[in-house]
Amino acid sequence: MIFPTIDYRKGAVEIIDQTLLPDEERIVRLTEVKEAAEAIRCLRVRGAPAIGIASAYAMLLSLEQLLKGRLKGGPRYFFDRLDGARPVEAAGVGEIEIRETLVAARELISTTRPTAVNLFWALERMSSVAESAGPGPAALCARVAREAFAIHAEELEKEYAIGKNGARFVRSGMSILTHCNAGGLATAGYGTALGVIYTAFEGGAKIHVYVDETRPLLQGARLTAWELKKRGIPHTVLCEGAAASLFSAGRIDAVIVGADRIAANGDTANKVGTLGLAVLCERFDRPLYVAAPWSTFDLGIPSGKAIPIEDRSADEVTSIAGKRIAPDGTAAYNPAFDVTPADMITAIVTERCVIERPNLLKIKELMTA
Amino acid sequence: MIFPTIDYRKGAVEIIDQTLLPDEERIVRLTEVKEAAEAIRCLRVRGAPAIGIASAYAMLLSLEQLLKGRLKGGPRYFFDRLDGARPVEAAGVGEIEIRETLVAARELISTTRPTAVNLFWALERMSSVAESAGPGPAALCARVAREAFAIHAEELEKEYAIGKNGARFVRSGMSILTHCNAGGLATAGYGTALGVIYTAFEGGAKIHVYVDETRPLLQGARLTAWELKKRGIPHTVLCEGAAASLFSAGRIDAVIVGADRIAANGDTANKVGTLGLAVLCERFDRPLYVAAPWSTFDLGIPSGKAIPIEDRSADEVTSIAGKRIAPDGTAAYNPAFDVTPADMITAIVTERCVIERPNLLKIKELMTA
Repeated sequence: MIFPTIDYRKGAVEIIDQTLLPDEERIVRLTEVKEAAEAIRCLRVRGAPAIGIASAYAMLLSLEQLLKGRLKGGPRYFFDRLDGARPVEAAGVGEIEIRETLVAARELISTTRPTAVNLFWALERMSSVAESAGPGPAALCARVAREAFAIHAEELEKEYAIGKNGARFVRSGMSILTHCNAGGLATAGYGTALGVIYTAFEGGAKIHVYVDETRPLLQGARLTAWELKKRGIPHTVLCEGAAASLFSAGRIDAVIVGADRIAANGDTANKVGTLGLAVLCERFDRPLYVAAPWSTFDLGIPSGKAIPIEDRSADEVTSIAGKRIAPDGTAAYNPAFDVTPADMITAIVTERCVIERPNLLKIKELMTA
Repeated sequence: MIFPTIDYRKGAVEIIDQTLLPDEERIVRLTEVKEAAEAIRCLRVRGAPAIGIASAYAMLLSLEQLLKGRLKGGPRYFFDRLDGARPVEAAGVGEIEIRETLVAARELISTTRPTAVNLFWALERMSSVAESAGPGPAALCARVAREAFAIHAEELEKEYAIGKNGARFVRSGMSILTHCNAGGLATAGYGTALGVIYTAFEGGAKIHVYVDETRPLLQGARLTAWELKKRGIPHTVLCEGAAASLFSAGRIDAVIVGADRIAANGDTANKVGTLGLAVLCERFDRPLYVAAPWSTFDLGIPSGKAIPIEDRSADEVTSIAGKRIAPDGTAAYNPAFDVTPADMITAIVTERCVIERPNLLKIKELMTA
């Protein structure tokens, strides 16, 4: 990691406040579980993997608070991602209290983003290790801390693996278009679609990245451009409407995007605007790569038709930066995601493998392999 | 006209200040040629046909100023679009002064938007009638006024004719997507692409209009939505990136756009984003109609490859409403237009005729017919 997007250091959850980017790069130290929940709710931390990690860390933070509250003048902190857990016995906290604290924390955190799958997955994983851990407060706390750090580390490992698996598609001299933010800010700190780009760049490929600004919330202009600038990767921002003319001029060699959910047949839901890029790839004969962790597959969903698409508020479209840009009362069509059919995807890159020309059969075989 | 976009009433050029829309609907009365030039320069009036009319009216305004300045206590105004010209003899202004005033006005106005073809075309037309008009100040002034009103009236007639010619493609129950603003605000008061929609709607067709917000300058959200609201036509705004999902869901029946320049083979330059819609129309088997006055054809240009595309400032992309939305120094790709190949266009609708599946031969035949 060149810059930490999220971390647990010396008794606090540290995040970059994404609502302030790109104007201000502020690392916020969250020392109370309430603050951590609020940060998730207010999108200070966003992106499915990042939300999962933040939720696990928020659970750990609830223990930190309990222990520190009990032992004035004790160690300055109990948990740290690099140092691990410190002895908690001195705090004299009982196992029951610890378990109650974790249950309360879980309840609080689970109200923040009710549709975020990774959030519930992380909370469940934390609760489940807590249930079987012990006996004794020390063993219980150490196990909970280890799990939170493991979630973070595993996610990061997946991203590095996705980067490595995808980098083979990126050759020197290529211009790559990406959409939204599937980078370190949305994940454990490296990224999926951007992880592929980073790995190729770190491997010496001379590339140029075109970044869709990604209306309405402008994650491309605000966040992806910020990450690319940080890493010194040449890039250019564009409005979605200008993409076709870039393709037409032969200036795009490939498109790489992330994914929010992938159906059993490979149909992929991602930030709205992805399907339009897929159609351009098809028309102008360019490859479209989807980079996402294996966990993005939702085999309970047979095809893209069954993926529920969140309709978001019209205000996101009709106002920008607090200024109304359409007449009062204007209706807006504002789906958060669109679905790209599997047969328009050149390859899905995961941490386990690359699925070229994905379809139901290939995915099924890989799942049961 | 339900609302006048531009007019010449009682000695003043009246415009809706488009820079204030949609927040405020302010009719500005311009009584000095300097003010009129400034209004064109600052985009208070914009759109090729509207700029042409504003330029002709600004020339007339220079005479109004000259006459009024000379005759204190005379008539409150000399020229009016509905009343025509009043007797100017009483002002005692000589023919030479009038000609000098027109030359100075032309010079001033021609500096406002150096690339606007309609501006120069209108100024040339006004100057040319002035040269041959006379003898005597009264005849000269009357001829100049008549020409300005004729330019406005002719443009409006063309728009009504385009509307009529295109309305055959719009059936009740259809959902139509449009891009940017090719409506009354950009023209003599009715519109080209929107003129087709208005004519169909006035003819009783129950339609729904989807409006691309049209980044970066948001003419769709700001201006087209305003016009549709004024006329009570049901409409929904969307970000460009969301269009593909509407097509994919079968919710778009046709796309109608305007044009900035059409090459001899039918390749069409229009607001950036149009080519992306053309690709969607092709992929999802929907018709794409281009509505534009005959004067939009530029036969000196053999194909779209030769149409010069204006690259605009990165700031339009990286800032919105004065707020920076990308990191400092971010480069942006910001062409004003893109080019849609003729073979992706279902029909070009002009005031003279409809050219289905346009190509070099058809256009040549019609031009020489």
